[in-house]
Amino acid sequence: MTTPLLRVGLAGLGTVGASVWRQLSSQKDLLRQRTGAEIRLDQVAVRRAERAREVGVPESLVVADWRKLTANPELDVVVELIGGTTEAFELIRLALQNGKHVITANKALLAERGAELFATAQKHQRQLLFEASVAGGIPIIRALRDGLVANRICSIHGIINGTCNYILTRMNEGGLEFKDALAEAKAKGYAEADDRLDVDGHDTAHKAAVLAALAYGFWVPPDQLYTEGLRAVEKQDIVYARKLGYGLKLLAIIKTDADGAVEVRVHPTLVPESHVLASVSGVFNAVLVRGDVVGDTLYYGRGAGGDPTASALLSDLAQIAEHFPLEQKCRNVGHEALHSRLKTMEEIVSRYYLRLLVVDRPGVLADVARVLASRQIGISSVIQPEAHAGETTPLVLMLHDAPEAQFQAAVREIATIGAVKAPPVHLRVEDI
Amino acid sequence: MTTPLLRVGLAGLGTVGASVWRQLSSQKDLLRQRTGAEIRLDQVAVRRAERAREVGVPESLVVADWRKLTANPELDVVVELIGGTTEAFELIRLALQNGKHVITANKALLAERGAELFATAQKHQRQLLFEASVAGGIPIIRALRDGLVANRICSIHGIINGTCNYILTRMNEGGLEFKDALAEAKAKGYAEADDRLDVDGHDTAHKAAVLAALAYGFWVPPDQLYTEGLRAVEKQDIVYARKLGYGLKLLAIIKTDADGAVEVRVHPTLVPESHVLASVSGVFNAVLVRGDVVGDTLYYGRGAGGDPTASALLSDLAQIAEHFPLEQKCRNVGHEALHSRLKTMEEIVSRYYLRLLVVDRPGVLADVARVLASRQIGISSVIQPEAHAGETTPLVLMLHDAPEAQFQAAVREIATIGAVKAPPVHLRVEDI
Repeated sequence: MTTPLLRVGLAGLGTVGASVWRQLSSQKDLLRQRTGAEIRLDQVAVRRAERAREVGVPESLVVADWRKLTANPELDVVVELIGGTTEAFELIRLALQNGKHVITANKALLAERGAELFATAQKHQRQLLFEASVAGGIPIIRALRDGLVANRICSIHGIINGTCNYILTRMNEGGLEFKDALAEAKAKGYAEADDRLDVDGHDTAHKAAVLAALAYGFWVPPDQLYTEGLRAVEKQDIVYARKLGYGLKLLAIIKTDADGAVEVRVHPTLVPESHVLASVSGVFNAVLVRGDVVGDTLYYGRGAGGDPTASALLSDLAQIAEHFPLEQKCRNVGHEALHSRLKTMEEIVSRYYLRLLVVDRPGVLADVARVLASRQIGISSVIQPEAHAGETTPLVLMLHDAPEAQFQAAVREIATIGAVKAPPVHLRVEDI
Repeated sequence: MTTPLLRVGLAGLGTVGASVWRQLSSQKDLLRQRTGAEIRLDQVAVRRAERAREVGVPESLVVADWRKLTANPELDVVVELIGGTTEAFELIRLALQNGKHVITANKALLAERGAELFATAQKHQRQLLFEASVAGGIPIIRALRDGLVANRICSIHGIINGTCNYILTRMNEGGLEFKDALAEAKAKGYAEADDRLDVDGHDTAHKAAVLAALAYGFWVPPDQLYTEGLRAVEKQDIVYARKLGYGLKLLAIIKTDADGAVEVRVHPTLVPESHVLASVSGVFNAVLVRGDVVGDTLYYGRGAGGDPTASALLSDLAQIAEHFPLEQKCRNVGHEALHSRLKTMEEIVSRYYLRLLVVDRPGVLADVARVLASRQIGISSVIQPEAHAGETTPLVLMLHDAPEAQFQAAVREIATIGAVKAPPVHLRVEDI
């Protein structure tokens, strides 16, 4: 029996593209043994020919325009690594229409236009695979699609941005303020010069949208995905939280309730320090998945970098290669609309950490507690560092479950109390 | 298009079998949506008809003899849950020979006769799937086969027996001695009345053999798999190790070196307390995998119990159902012999923790250090609690890397030093 040959086009030759090129060559025999097929890179689209020379791609394979790939009838698969959401969309659409399977790591594109792209893939009965789009080398997409296929997903809690987790780790362990931790992350190459995508939570939100689509079969409109980044996080809150037994993480939270309504949100979140999720430090990622049959499972590893991402992209190639050229059924995201109603942020229910700056005089805690009680919000613990009468001092409260709308209304009222001297600071808490 | 029907026979109706029965019914629609096929339980083999009534299996489906299943030409898949290694072997062999796919959770059987069974599966071009055989609901088999398919596996470190991890957690956190922690585990239903399979490390060894076969393509002969359980573990060693920054876990360790020789061993092992593996507590399982491309990934969850195990078994059923009735290529374990030489225990290299009971008099540490130095074994740290001169006191040493044979020879020589008053106690250390 001859070994089937899977012919691949690669669009984009940045860090990840270069790693795919290298690893496809170094893992060639391994992949042939394991998949029974040969995976061959036949064409590489890269704008600067100079870059192809740097990476060592033979000139004969290089084209400047990715349209050469999508139009090439010899290619079975196109790997999209050009990034962005305009040309990349066109590339993937054309490739699918022309009968090619597509592999991408482009979470921004999937979050924005995933519904259209998967509908196109389904129409043309081609695979659109995206293991590399979330959590780099951790096979979380496969875990959700295949490993946990027999589970309704109750919730997903993800630390899925290494830059943010590095910053929070340094604020916690190194006692740095946000700005200094960010500067250190940049110096070490863990943060981009333009830090907005990571630090403001957008990258996490893109990945949250992908995970939510897998779990619940629909795409959250980007403007309805609540996203809060790290810029407002202060070191002192990390210190108080630790005293209360919690660690601070930037989490993607994806959940459903008994009625099937779904919430998807990204914000700094306190998690119990004893939970394994709290021990995920530095640039590592972790995704905790609660299934209705299996209970909790967690997936941990490096969420970024050329090689970990290439490992995921190559696993998608191997998935196609394994059964090639037999026809495969395509199971594309969104053909199972399990849930469809997205909760607004006002509807979500959470526990809260609340820090106030108050004048230390009798009755202040009573005033605050009265406002909370009037909205049925219970207090589970309080920290108030000793201060001299009449001085200002932080007052830190851990609150029981409350609907977000009710909590926000309480905070607005608390801010009007005379003894409260600065805008209240709050963090949401997840008792996973 | 009509929905394809996958007809399943279930052999065995213990805790896991009952859970498969329940979950196949409660997740029926979900599985149909996700796989595009209907998975139907058509026949259940169980010795006691009474048990079938308890579980609620209709009498019309029940047979007493599993041979009815393997001989039934209508069945596409047989799920083996009868346990043991004699009848279960026959069952699987017959089912494969009769053209059925087989799903099993039977790690003892795979560890003992996996080579024969997978050869049979390969010969008859049928799937033999075993996601449930290691770490219950954690999809670690899929992660190794599919998610990390583009990686050579450098090492696997697994906490894969919940009973043992519960006992060690209670010894650490609750300050219990082994016997009391074991009694507690039994009282809570985390340990069997016959505790040997778990506590002596055999269950961990069976799973280690399965993971090793996946990683390196060959089956370790059971009598060559070094297996040491928990009975000799003392609380004091957990306390000293903690002072040195280490936690104690029963690990399955599977590794290869630059020359391709493989080591597979199971024993109590110290791991750095800062590593996420050390934070895996109670009955939870975790498997840390180091791939040559992806780096470290870790998989965590419940390693036992009816429902988590059923989640894994159903994922195997779904894998078959997804492409059913299209013919699939079978990628069975062992068709890729990547490595074949197993190291003996004497050859392995490890760091060690060594505790001696010594008379506190001048020159004892010097004597011990001299023996170690004569065999090129360095000391990285020492704990010696203060004692009165002439009294006996523990002397705890952390040692640098040494070949096991050399270390054991050193220990034998140290035991002959006059001031050493009890047989030396040692633990291996992994700096993951």
